[in-house]
Order: sequence, then C-alpha cells, then structure tokens
Amino acid sequence: MKKALALDVGGTKIYSAIIDETGKIISEIEKNHTPQTYEEIKYLFERIIKAYENEVDVIAFSTCGAVNNQNNGILGSTGNIAKGYPKMPFAKLSSKLVFVENDANCAAWAEYKIGASKGCKNSVMLTLGTGVGGGIIVDGRILKGKNGAAGEMHFKMYCDKRRKCTCGSWDCFEIYASGKGLKLTAEEYTHNPDITTYDVIDGVKKNDKQMLEIFNRWQDDITIGIIGLANIFDPDCVVLSGSMAQFVQTDLVEQKVNKEIVTTPTKVLKATAGNYSGMIGAAILALEKAGK
Amino acid sequence: MKKALALDVGGTKIYSAIIDETGKIISEIEKNHTPQTYEEIKYLFERIIKAYENEVDVIAFSTCGAVNNQNNGILGSTGNIAKGYPKMPFAKLSSKLVFVENDANCAAWAEYKIGASKGCKNSVMLTLGTGVGGGIIVDGRILKGKNGAAGEMHFKMYCDKRRKCTCGSWDCFEIYASGKGLKLTAEEYTHNPDITTYDVIDGVKKNDKQMLEIFNRWQDDITIGIIGLANIFDPDCVVLSGSMAQFVQTDLVEQKVNKEIVTTPTKVLKATAGNYSGMIGAAILALEKAGK
Repeated sequence: MKKALALDVGGTKIYSAIIDETGKIISEIEKNHTPQTYEEIKYLFERIIKAYENEVDVIAFSTCGAVNNQNNGILGSTGNIAKGYPKMPFAKLSSKLVFVENDANCAAWAEYKIGASKGCKNSVMLTLGTGVGGGIIVDGRILKGKNGAAGEMHFKMYCDKRRKCTCGSWDCFEIYASGKGLKLTAEEYTHNPDITTYDVIDGVKKNDKQMLEIFNRWQDDITIGIIGLANIFDPDCVVLSGSMAQFVQTDLVEQKVNKEIVTTPTKVLKATAGNYSGMIGAAILALEKAGK
Repeated sequence: MKKALALDVGGTKIYSAIIDETGKIISEIEKNHTPQTYEEIKYLFERIIKAYENEVDVIAFSTCGAVNNQNNGILGSTGNIAKGYPKMPFAKLSSKLVFVENDANCAAWAEYKIGASKGCKNSVMLTLGTGVGGGIIVDGRILKGKNGAAGEMHFKMYCDKRRKCTCGSWDCFEIYASGKGLKLTAEEYTHNPDITTYDVIDGVKKNDKQMLEIFNRWQDDITIGIIGLANIFDPDCVVLSGSMAQFVQTDLVEQKVNKEIVTTPTKVLKATAGNYSGMIGAAILALEKAGK
C-alpha cells in the first residue's frame, strides 16, 4: 500500500506522521512546537523529511495559509507564523513528490474521504476555533478559485461596522462564529472584558440565563452564516470541526437552516475524522495526485 | 454550423430565437407575454418548437427557477410564474435534445463564452434587477450543488431582522442590492413610501445630496456582498448584469472590494453579452452538451 509522510503546519505546532492511502496513521505522531524563524522551520522540515522519505511515496503538507493551484507554494502572508514562511521552497525539500494544500481544505478532504461527509460531493466545512477556517468541496473537487485562495469565511454579518475582524475589515463571519466571536459576544452582553468562552460554556451547563442567551446568540450567528452558504452552494452537508464545534447543537442548527434556505435541504454534521484530519486529508490528496 | 432553438422563459416574457454555436442570433427574436396558466405556456412552447425544430440541432431553455443537474426539469416552485410550471415535461416537447438551465446560470455562461468574463474560469455573475440572480462559474463549470439549486444570493446583510426578503427570510443580499432594495433604502432615508428607484437615479444626476447618500448606501451594500463572494470564491471577476447594473460605478466598487478582501485581487465588470444573454448561454450550453 502506498504511503505519505504527512506534516501539519500550524502557527503553534507542527505534527508529522506516516499515513497510508486509506487515511490510516501507521507511525507515531511526532509533535514539535512551530519554530520562530523561517530558517528553523525549514531545518525542522528537512530533518523530518530526511528521516522518513525513504519509507514513503510522497511528502504531504497540510499548512496554514492559502496554497497555490499547483500545490507547491504559499500565496501571500499567513498570519501567525514566521514572516518568511510563504517563501518555503517545498518542492526542493525532497526528491519525492512534495504536495502542499491549505489545512482547512485538507481537513475537508479527510471528512469527504473517510469522515462525516463521506461520499458527499458537495459540502462546506467550517473549522470553528480561535478563528474560522473554510474548506469547500464542489462536485467532488476542492474549491480553489483562480489562485487557490478560495474558502475564506470573511463575508459580513452586519453592514454598519460593529466589530473589527482580525483581517482588518469589519463584521466578518469569522469574528462572530469563532471562539473569539463567542468571547466578544459575551463581553457585549456582560460588559466584562475578562469573561472567557469557558465561562460561557460553564454557565450554559449550569443553566445560567444570561450565559444561555449569549450562547444562543453565538449559535444563531453560526446558523445565519450556514444559511447563506447553503443558499450559495446547495451542499449535501455542512460539517463543523475545530475546538468550538463540540458545543454546537447541530440538530437544532440544521432544523433552523432548512426552515430558511431557498435551496434544497442540507445536513449539518460534526466532523468525525479527528484531530489529525489535516494530515490525513493531505496524505490522501498527495497519494491521489501521485497515482495519476 | 450547429444551431439551437433557444427560449428564454421569465415571469413576464418568453423570448425565442435561433442561435448558432458561436452565440450569434441568426433569426428574428419572437417575443411573447408569459401566459397565465401551465396549459397555455405548454401550448406556446409546443407551437414555437414545432415551427423551428427541423431547422436546429437542439432546443435550449433558459428559464426562471432552479434546474436539476440532469438539465431536464425544474426543482420546486419558481415565484411569479404559473404554479404548475415546474412540472413541464421539457424532454417530451421535441424529438430533438431538449436542454434546460437556470436563466442566471445561462447568462453567466454567455458572459464566460463571449462576454465580459470571457475566458475567466472562475467568476461570479450578479443580475441586479427587481431581484438579484446569481450565476457562479467554478473552474470552468457552472456551480450547481447537489440538486442544481446553487447560486442563490440569499446570504444575510444583518443578523437583527431589519428587512423582510421576498424569500420569506430576513435581510438577504437580494433585498438590499436589488432595485427593490434601492427603493426600500430610499424609503428608509426619506420616509416617503412613494419614492421610486427612478427618483433616486434622477436625483443622483442632479447631484441631490440625499439621493446621493441613498445611492451610495445601495452601492456600498452591493460592494459588501461582493467582498463576501470574492473571499469565498477567489474569482477572476465579478460581472454585474440586469437593469440596475448600468448605474453601478464598477471602478469604485472594484477598488473598495480589493482593499478589503483577504483573497487575491478580482475585477468588477459590467456584463457585455446583452439582453439576450440567457438565450445565448442556453444555446451554447445545449450545443456543447449535444456535441459530447
């Protein structure tokens, strides 16, 4: 069976493992902190690749940042990782095929191949974490756009400038539906700048009326975003992943979404491919590409 | 050269003409009012098809309503056309291949093949009329979704229920960016329920301060919608068509969009394929399908 060395590159951690073409992780998972500089990141990549490349058919990167349509380089800047990172010469890191794809796209592919949206040729995956990532599958292919940057969940929830988004613009879905969005909603309701998402979730468990109100506002904002996406894409399903997804009442959201959309009914599901879905999706994509 | 008999079916008019595979209209354009009943519409289709089917290779319908992925039938209801219309047995209307596609998708295809977005494999077309239609092209193919209903421009502009949309939901892009949206914005600014879009456009020409303010709010709402779509699709271009598109300052909108998006720069253009782009797109699509 063909195998990939997969690396998942985030702003804080870099994971790596060997994964077979069915998406099964067949080695220990190596975990490293993301180094501060471009040179150190490159050195870490080289060390990991040198150690395992003889055992595998391809090298598969799941990375933060938008990835070009050739799947060999990063477009523009990437937020919280070393400034020079987008210049990484991925193809030159190994004599084997090196395949690169955006982490949200990889995770969406893992769900499509072995997870919650298995077999759904049209799906939207939302990764609800500190921010919101998006991976969209259209007719069995990842939506990339002209340069590879598609799938950014920065559509506006209000047109009258209420919350500044991390992207520099105002009122994007990300700044309402993310963990940070939940905290900001809680701050607005309580006027307490120190309130955390944990306080809200804990309050919900204790049936605190105000915390329930805050949580419902956050969940309604997620619902509203999904309504727009379901009208645009007519997807089989919308999959929620990331650390905040566990709190979402997907049955309720699905019901509300299907009551409002003008397209045909969609499912709202939680991701099932697990914490390493980025690596798994990258490995499957890279092995599919190598097999062509 | 291969030819199609194309029919454009809207809520008020039905146009028909013979169109060749280059998108050129090579007959008179027949114009009929859309009959009130299903039976009368069917009879009109049969009369037109009987008169011309021997001269052409395919019959191509550009129609209101969402069209299925087999391009032979309509999904669900369609607003302002006879209730039974979605049951039309298109394939049985002729012994030739009968191809059906949604009018906004056909118009987007015409722009892609011979119009403003010629050669742009990733584009979003917005038809700004009484309502707003959407036709999206992803990697050279029409975005259809699981059942064919994709491309509906019903994503929300506010989350606090300000304007009821024609779809029954609240605050969709359509109810802000359409002609009706401009009228509603004007009503809100002037508290005059009788104000028309004409009054606003006329006032803008005369440099009336309040009318300029209303117009700019409307144009900013269109801009905000395009920002969201450009972040989701990373398109080569966004094309504006329909009766209201002529008033939009596309250079200014393009500038504002590219200042805010996190994807890569997009163009904002006016459609150039003309009033019959629905028929032209349907004809080209149908002839492409027949040629396969």
